[in-house]
Amino acid sequence: MNTKLPPRTVERLSKYRRLLDKYKDLEGAHIYSHKLAGLLNLTPEQVRRDLMLIGITGNHRRGYNIKELIGMIGNTIDRHEGQQVALVGIGNLGRAVLGFIRKAETRMNIVAAFDIDRSKINTHIGNVPCFHLHDARQVVRDKSIRIAILTVPPEVAVATTAMLLQSGIRGILNFTSVHLDVPPGIYLKDYDIITSLEEIGFFIQE
Amino acid sequence: MNTKLPPRTVERLSKYRRLLDKYKDLEGAHIYSHKLAGLLNLTPEQVRRDLMLIGITGNHRRGYNIKELIGMIGNTIDRHEGQQVALVGIGNLGRAVLGFIRKAETRMNIVAAFDIDRSKINTHIGNVPCFHLHDARQVVRDKSIRIAILTVPPEVAVATTAMLLQSGIRGILNFTSVHLDVPPGIYLKDYDIITSLEEIGFFIQE
Repeated sequence: MNTKLPPRTVERLSKYRRLLDKYKDLEGAHIYSHKLAGLLNLTPEQVRRDLMLIGITGNHRRGYNIKELIGMIGNTIDRHEGQQVALVGIGNLGRAVLGFIRKAETRMNIVAAFDIDRSKINTHIGNVPCFHLHDARQVVRDKSIRIAILTVPPEVAVATTAMLLQSGIRGILNFTSVHLDVPPGIYLKDYDIITSLEEIGFFIQE
Repeated sequence: MNTKLPPRTVERLSKYRRLLDKYKDLEGAHIYSHKLAGLLNLTPEQVRRDLMLIGITGNHRRGYNIKELIGMIGNTIDRHEGQQVALVGIGNLGRAVLGFIRKAETRMNIVAAFDIDRSKINTHIGNVPCFHLHDARQVVRDKSIRIAILTVPPEVAVATTAMLLQSGIRGILNFTSVHLDVPPGIYLKDYDIITSLEEIGFFIQE
């Protein structure tokens, strides 16, 4: 498996697949790089370069076979058995994220939720069992969880992250606005709403 | 105002400011580009290039003056009067996003919320008044709103977007998993949770 791909390429490959997924049952359907590029505000060169990196070259006359494309992207970016994910912090945001992921077609399985509110422990959020954060080490090992989605209040973000890393978590999707310092080998991705809004604000200035 | 900056630069400038904001009251405090870079997993060259683009050069011996840096970034990316933002769709996710933005220090002001559930219309979510989506055109004009945060259910995302654009919205932060087609001149930013998870999953593979 090629883990040398740049993060932006992986991000785009995932987007190509999500966009194409609805056409996957169309037997023999093809798409041109410029069409795919147009749908995602990219250049056709970018799309062709990304696909070339995972060994796909299109047909000049017909473009890319959609079904093959989806398959090859999956071979590149998916683990075969799927990935086990924990949701950490069950407030409004945590519930919203959970609902969102449940509706999507993905191999990312949320198999545990953590909180410190005793009224939530040993209940289920949707179908997901909820545990006390103090049991994270045990649960993370038992369920082979490697990714955590962090939706705790900002004031406990740093302490919670330390605990998750000690429990064996290797990747974190950080929904708190808090800057997290993680050691090398841990993959951290920040979801920063304010930064996104400020970016939009900048680009719509007259 | 320089709207020629690349989106990624604007994104990073916003991050520099959010990270430095907590040090802003330290009179005379400085920071080196390599320190700032390290905190955000960037290279010092990247940081220096970004800051050079908005006319800031650091002092070789002391680095960048933090207060000046925050001010210059603000002069570049903020509108002076702040920006009026609407929240569209008041479910769990909408409420969570609203709470998140309220706690952050930002010039992004959520001044209206929209929904179609009559039990929510004419109430307040936090301090934010809630209107029927059918009144969007009027409210958007009256309150000079230019940005919308889209947290509606996926099945109504496309229709809602069309309505918002007709109402004069110029920028959209899309939290639905739906691909939106927007005309040139509209700035769209997708918040794609699945793509982020798949990216993390890829990079933590052994």
